[in-house]
Amino acid sequence: MPSRPPPCPALPGLLLLLLLLLLLLRPARPGAVGAAPFEPSWESLDARPLPEWFDAAKFGVFIHWGVYSVPSFGSEWFWWYWQNQKIPKYVDFMKDNYPPDFKYEDFGPLFTAKFFNASQWADLLQASGAKYVVLTSKHHEGFPLWGSEYSWNWNAVDEGPKRDIVKELEVAVRSRTNLHFGLYYSLFEWFHPLFLEDKSSSFQKQKFPVAKMLPELYELVTRYQPEVLWADGDGGAPDSYWNSTGFLAWLYNESPVRDTVVTNDRWGDGCICRHGGYYTCADRYHPGHLLLHKWENCMTIDQLSWGYRRDAGISDYLTIEELVKQLVETVAYGGNLLMNIGPTLDGTISAIFEERLRQMGAWLKVNGEAIYDTHTWRFQNDTFTPNVWYTSKPKEKLVYAIFLKWPISGQLVLAQPSGIPGETEVELLGHGQPLPWTSFKPAGMVVQLPQLTIHQMPSRWGWALRLSSVI
Amino acid sequence: MPSRPPPCPALPGLLLLLLLLLLLLRPARPGAVGAAPFEPSWESLDARPLPEWFDAAKFGVFIHWGVYSVPSFGSEWFWWYWQNQKIPKYVDFMKDNYPPDFKYEDFGPLFTAKFFNASQWADLLQASGAKYVVLTSKHHEGFPLWGSEYSWNWNAVDEGPKRDIVKELEVAVRSRTNLHFGLYYSLFEWFHPLFLEDKSSSFQKQKFPVAKMLPELYELVTRYQPEVLWADGDGGAPDSYWNSTGFLAWLYNESPVRDTVVTNDRWGDGCICRHGGYYTCADRYHPGHLLLHKWENCMTIDQLSWGYRRDAGISDYLTIEELVKQLVETVAYGGNLLMNIGPTLDGTISAIFEERLRQMGAWLKVNGEAIYDTHTWRFQNDTFTPNVWYTSKPKEKLVYAIFLKWPISGQLVLAQPSGIPGETEVELLGHGQPLPWTSFKPAGMVVQLPQLTIHQMPSRWGWALRLSSVI
Amino acid sequence: MPSRPPPCPALPGLLLLLLLLLLLLRPARPGAVGAAPFEPSWESLDARPLPEWFDAAKFGVFIHWGVYSVPSFGSEWFWWYWQNQKIPKYVDFMKDNYPPDFKYEDFGPLFTAKFFNASQWADLLQASGAKYVVLTSKHHEGFPLWGSEYSWNWNAVDEGPKRDIVKELEVAVRSRTNLHFGLYYSLFEWFHPLFLEDKSSSFQKQKFPVAKMLPELYELVTRYQPEVLWADGDGGAPDSYWNSTGFLAWLYNESPVRDTVVTNDRWGDGCICRHGGYYTCADRYHPGHLLLHKWENCMTIDQLSWGYRRDAGISDYLTIEELVKQLVETVAYGGNLLMNIGPTLDGTISAIFEERLRQMGAWLKVNGEAIYDTHTWRFQNDTFTPNVWYTSKPKEKLVYAIFLKWPISGQLVLAQPSGIPGETEVELLGHGQPLPWTSFKPAGMVVQLPQLTIHQMPSRWGWALRLSSVI
Amino acid sequence: MPSRPPPCPALPGLLLLLLLLLLLLRPARPGAVGAAPFEPSWESLDARPLPEWFDAAKFGVFIHWGVYSVPSFGSEWFWWYWQNQKIPKYVDFMKDNYPPDFKYEDFGPLFTAKFFNASQWADLLQASGAKYVVLTSKHHEGFPLWGSEYSWNWNAVDEGPKRDIVKELEVAVRSRTNLHFGLYYSLFEWFHPLFLEDKSSSFQKQKFPVAKMLPELYELVTRYQPEVLWADGDGGAPDSYWNSTGFLAWLYNESPVRDTVVTNDRWGDGCICRHGGYYTCADRYHPGHLLLHKWENCMTIDQLSWGYRRDAGISDYLTIEELVKQLVETVAYGGNLLMNIGPTLDGTISAIFEERLRQMGAWLKVNGEAIYDTHTWRFQNDTFTPNVWYTSKPKEKLVYAIFLKWPISGQLVLAQPSGIPGETEVELLGHGQPLPWTSFKPAGMVVQLPQLTIHQMPSRWGWALRLSSVI
Repeated sequence: MPSRPPPCPALPGLLLLLLLLLLLLRPARPGAVGAAPFEPSWESLDARPLPEWFDAAKFGVFIHWGVYSVPSFGSEWFWWYWQNQKIPKYVDFMKDNYPPDFKYEDFGPLFTAKFFNASQWADLLQASGAKYVVLTSKHHEGFPLWGSEYSWNWNAVDEGPKRDIVKELEVAVRSRTNLHFGLYYSLFEWFHPLFLEDKSSSFQKQKFPVAKMLPELYELVTRYQPEVLWADGDGGAPDSYWNSTGFLAWLYNESPVRDTVVTNDRWGDGCICRHGGYYTCADRYHPGHLLLHKWENCMTIDQLSWGYRRDAGISDYLTIEELVKQLVETVAYGGNLLMNIGPTLDGTISAIFEERLRQMGAWLKVNGEAIYDTHTWRFQNDTFTPNVWYTSKPKEKLVYAIFLKWPISGQLVLAQPSGIPGETEVELLGHGQPLPWTSFKPAGMVVQLPQLTIHQMPSRWGWALRLSSVI
Repeated sequence: MPSRPPPCPALPGLLLLLLLLLLLLRPARPGAVGAAPFEPSWESLDARPLPEWFDAAKFGVFIHWGVYSVPSFGSEWFWWYWQNQKIPKYVDFMKDNYPPDFKYEDFGPLFTAKFFNASQWADLLQASGAKYVVLTSKHHEGFPLWGSEYSWNWNAVDEGPKRDIVKELEVAVRSRTNLHFGLYYSLFEWFHPLFLEDKSSSFQKQKFPVAKMLPELYELVTRYQPEVLWADGDGGAPDSYWNSTGFLAWLYNESPVRDTVVTNDRWGDGCICRHGGYYTCADRYHPGHLLLHKWENCMTIDQLSWGYRRDAGISDYLTIEELVKQLVETVAYGGNLLMNIGPTLDGTISAIFEERLRQMGAWLKVNGEAIYDTHTWRFQNDTFTPNVWYTSKPKEKLVYAIFLKWPISGQLVLAQPSGIPGETEVELLGHGQPLPWTSFKPAGMVVQLPQLTIHQMPSRWGWALRLSSVI
Repeated sequence: MPSRPPPCPALPGLLLLLLLLLLLLRPARPGAVGAAPFEPSWESLDARPLPEWFDAAKFGVFIHWGVYSVPSFGSEWFWWYWQNQKIPKYVDFMKDNYPPDFKYEDFGPLFTAKFFNASQWADLLQASGAKYVVLTSKHHEGFPLWGSEYSWNWNAVDEGPKRDIVKELEVAVRSRTNLHFGLYYSLFEWFHPLFLEDKSSSFQKQKFPVAKMLPELYELVTRYQPEVLWADGDGGAPDSYWNSTGFLAWLYNESPVRDTVVTNDRWGDGCICRHGGYYTCADRYHPGHLLLHKWENCMTIDQLSWGYRRDAGISDYLTIEELVKQLVETVAYGGNLLMNIGPTLDGTISAIFEERLRQMGAWLKVNGEAIYDTHTWRFQNDTFTPNVWYTSKPKEKLVYAIFLKWPISGQLVLAQPSGIPGETEVELLGHGQPLPWTSFKPAGMVVQLPQLTIHQMPSRWGWALRLSSVI
Repeated sequence: MPSRPPPCPALPGLLLLLLLLLLLLRPARPGAVGAAPFEPSWESLDARPLPEWFDAAKFGVFIHWGVYSVPSFGSEWFWWYWQNQKIPKYVDFMKDNYPPDFKYEDFGPLFTAKFFNASQWADLLQASGAKYVVLTSKHHEGFPLWGSEYSWNWNAVDEGPKRDIVKELEVAVRSRTNLHFGLYYSLFEWFHPLFLEDKSSSFQKQKFPVAKMLPELYELVTRYQPEVLWADGDGGAPDSYWNSTGFLAWLYNESPVRDTVVTNDRWGDGCICRHGGYYTCADRYHPGHLLLHKWENCMTIDQLSWGYRRDAGISDYLTIEELVKQLVETVAYGGNLLMNIGPTLDGTISAIFEERLRQMGAWLKVNGEAIYDTHTWRFQNDTFTPNVWYTSKPKEKLVYAIFLKWPISGQLVLAQPSGIPGETEVELLGHGQPLPWTSFKPAGMVVQLPQLTIHQMPSRWGWALRLSSVI
């Protein structure tokens, strides 16, 4: 055995990483004229206009699926709560049901996705009225749903499903009209040894982004060409650690999706709600007022979890009335709604999720005109009648008033828009006939709703009025 | 090695069985005065009056749970379809997902019932408005959900759940008021070697009933005291093979539940719709006219299966409107509705089943008065207005008209009952105020319904009018 | 719920069992002349002469294989030690390696017997020099290695191997010349609920023998026709409980193996070393003197267990020198040696067992003449020279002296046999030339052994001299 | 979706790798005086003298253990033979025993190492007489037996054993005197996607060595400080691809084991038997003549496999006589013997391996003087008497003649050494007394061996004579 202390073995590695970093931080194609407009700086990147399709889409479906779908207990943060936080509920669940040395990794082979049928999923997504879908290509657990070259034997092609989930869904989604394909990607991984090593160095080391995250992200974008790239999980590290601006410059300048891709704002500690593409700000974000920057409200049908929970009861799921309310309010405030479902370990979307998605689709089939391709209006909601929300189509001079309670009187008072007699027409979407209205003092309109039995109603969970030429 | 052919070894067994049979066929307590009124003959047994609680209950929940809940694919007849019928869908499912020598028995240990909570089930059953529950204590697969002494190591206490499912549910159900506990029991078992041997002998041998079915059934009744004993699966054998009349005589004369137990009519080839307790006639039985003998409509929320199917889509589940219709029609024709759910292998009742059960409970909370403890009326449905069904409470001189479509005109025409002006009162259940009505010519009434917004309605899937003193 | 206490439900069962018992105790074919010489009494049964093949065979191989071969830890009594005795070693093993609710039954599906090849086994058995084999058709755990109709889904055809182990081995063994097929069968089963119920009644009830053990034993004998029936495990119950004499009368009078079968002495509490066929007296029995009644020394190569132990070290296995010594001493005292091996859960016989079996076969190939078909001699061992053992063939006037230590002097003194000069010939088996000898005073002979290098020796672990016409 | 073809995404990665390579190929501390004597060139590296302990050790034990120990069928090349070569034996084995989509990775969790006890292993290794041990830290399957940061979730700490196997064995081995700890490491991995990508580029790309093999090898050496580093598996790539000389320069100049480590010659295509440390040339290498460069004969006790095979029969294992012969011949020709065992998936060393190891230890206890610390002699074997092999200790003027057959005459003729009357002494190791000898014409000696019974012999599988002062 050697008697002298070992000379610093980490040195070569460190040098190497610094070099790599320099390389990655390089300005892309600096000399090219017009080809690479974006610099790897927030100033430059934040100035990029958001591709138009996204704001028009309004409604997307978020899919959280991964190894946590195997225990499907408590939360998709299962691993962290069990092993790091040691929350008794999780610790006891494991102790009661598994051998003492069972590790989270042992759930991998049980993630069979036996019934996964991307074509069925795509049909359902389309039936829901969603215009885009965002799949967790890799969550904080670090298990890629595609055959990542940088996560050999810990990904969906090598273990568990043994299928390229991302590719199958991409192909199925792309074959449907009007459905955009997006991918969520967690930058950090709770327990990756290289990340933990970097973290111990207060992120002075960058082994993890260099060896894992950056090459994987290039691979992901190049192979699957997502039109939404939904970053998450900075792990407390700044964007400089993640080399986010360098990556985004590549994404906007050179990647195959440079013209259409949208991203969000979770690219490093301090970025959220400040830098990147559209803002997500927080999970289940709800500004309560109009936001000038495009934003998205990502939320869950199961109120308690993003991943599937076998033990969820019906009271944990939002009702369709609550979901419609979420959509309407979000759109009125200028946001998109990204509504989450969690498939089972078998690859099925449980009947309750399917019911909610199809209910939403049924509602949008009638009322989608007041949602898709709309803009916010001068007012977001009515000040006189509660539960009335506004959207608009300025070019067509249309305003939409969406009301979530049917007035007992049969008359709906709208205090914000004022009709022009002889010009303004009012119609209940799905009903088809002009409705009589009168002016309301000092401003506004009183709309006479038709008398309909429950079976005659065009929808049951909210209704929309199309108002033309109101002021 | 012996050179002579072996002497008939089966002889002693056969003699033995004949003796046993004689014993089992013996009249129970023949000398006792008044104590044992029932003879082991259909003539005697069929004359027993049905305990009153059953007809008053109207609505029960059927629970199909067993090893088939592990594959939870296709049907609870999985084993049969796969191994006997060799239906490609099942054969391929096994070939695609399991090793070549995987047998149905290997599903046993996977039936964990990890989340089974009998108390939660009982709460939900009560919330559904059901007045009784029938659990499959053993299906054709032959796996008892209790620790049967006659099926060692192939039952829920020894394998899989490792819990006495029957006992846990019994205790939980019994601790709720107004909820009766019942058990389904399959007489035959598809693949039991003794049954197959008997069958090969054209049921001349009776090894299976003697060694398995009869002792097990005694054990089941004695230990768990079910108030419904729901026999099924005669396997093509006559009731004499099963010694059904002998068993029923014991059940009615001596068993701990002799005063309250009800049974059905599936006690042997040819018995169905002819002998036993109430009639079930066929799965999803719907006579289409009034039946004099008490009957039950056992049907499933998932239209395609009694056991849980992981791959069921929302279109496979009946809507709450369809379920309410089933209940109303069944009760109007004099039947009880036994509505089936299939729990998962984990012991959870999926959210979609829970939703349906709670919806049914919500509907019954308002309209139960027109269902529970009612009798059929002179007419079952209205001849003028479709979708109107009648029940009655003769003692209280009440008739209930349940209508499933709200009339566009706001006026409901009832052609069968005729009101007595100044005496007859009409009320919408859940609404609370007398409704105006006028006579309809040549007979009947026109009821003026209240004008209600969707939010004001007492229920959404059907409504009931209480009519007093109609003729 | 019933308010009166339930009437005794056990009564019909008890009556039934008594009747059954009477039936089973009936004299077999009482009127037949000469056909059924044996009465169901020990007096009659003990008088049956042991079929001759057994004493001539001398050496058999015992095979302990079952579900305990899955944990293959500690002992084949694993289940009992773990669950009943709660010995920490076993309790900890389970706690450390399995989920909390893992039961012994869960080992069943893991008993794959993947590599089981009965033909290879039979080849090896033959190569070992054994003349019979005894397989544990069912041990105390109650798991039959054949598809017992009375243990559905808890047997080797329905679970684990999914093969009829008993049949496969029977066929393979029977196709080899000079190899007899025998079966071990445990009467009781540690945890069978019917046995436990009988036991609680101090064996006044007989549910278990009637419903399980007797029909299973008939089935076993009839189907597989074993020539050794090795009973074990009376569970503390007398032979009257087991109806052993009734069964043996059938076995000797009517069964297909009535002419050739041998059994042992473990047919009920108090029988051992007193009643039945040959005596086994105790595991690893070694009388230390000549026994008049035929006996068998059943012992194990792995000193600590009958079933396979994954954690056994080489020091736990007897060496070939020790095994040869066991064989020689046992035969000299009039016994048979039944030497046990424990196959793995995969169905392989581990290399160390194979080595010992082949070593024994190699030794018997040279020295078998002094073992097979021999009788005990006037003396069992030599009083002057230690480690010398005698057998004989009276008809051929031959005595064999087997010596386990090669004398340093090269001269072996035998004090018991006295040679007749000019008549007595001495030969070392495997050497082939007459050896010079002289008389030893006052009695005996001095044999001059040949001078042989280690490579020239006919065997290395013991040598046999054939002495003709000694007195 | 993008309409333009994606710009070359692989470019940045490639540049990056080239840079990395330059870095890794840099001369280590070129300016330091005396500190770094070795240049990253074969010329410089090959000139390093082999640390002395290695030649003195003579006998080591090789341990092949990995995920292939789970199927433990056929060969440790299981994965390759099954998936790449599609050899029917392997394909059928999988088809017969596993579900269709079972992958090699699924064996990972089954590699439990449940009974692995490093201390027991170390005791046994010491008892075998070995002076070093070489464990497969990672085989071609790519599964590290330590928690490699570069193979997250596919290593023994994260999956299967969930223990740091390398560390446990290192600690146990280091705590024994005179036992050196060595590690085998496979450079390539059959199915690693980065290696396959590099291979497709004819090794123009170097993603795999940069991202996986080099950082892992640094980690391995730094953490566990092996004194043998046994490289293997160049995958057809030259040492320049692997950057082997750069790594070895670091190993010899800077690593914690720079003073004591020995390596072999498998560092790239074309290196074997030409460059590196000692030569291994081929598996089971046997030159048949004296080799000037130090070499090692790595061979297996199970002739057919390096990894454990459950289905191996005793005839597959070399006998102790054959193993002793291997050792003696190898040492006489100047080599070391590295004798391989394959532990089971449970972490046990099967009894047959233990027997062989202990037999070897018993033989070396007597004859080790003629093996350890010896040198080759003028002659390697005797030209007159077959099966006689020579070693020597020049300083002590001793020659050892090891003979594997005991001469029938009792006289051993040695034609090569000539004794000096009155000076030369001859002794049989383990016997203790000088043996008479005479000269043999024209040259040599005749040694009179003692007459010993088999029980008196110091060993049974070969004997050694110590000859002093022979010429």
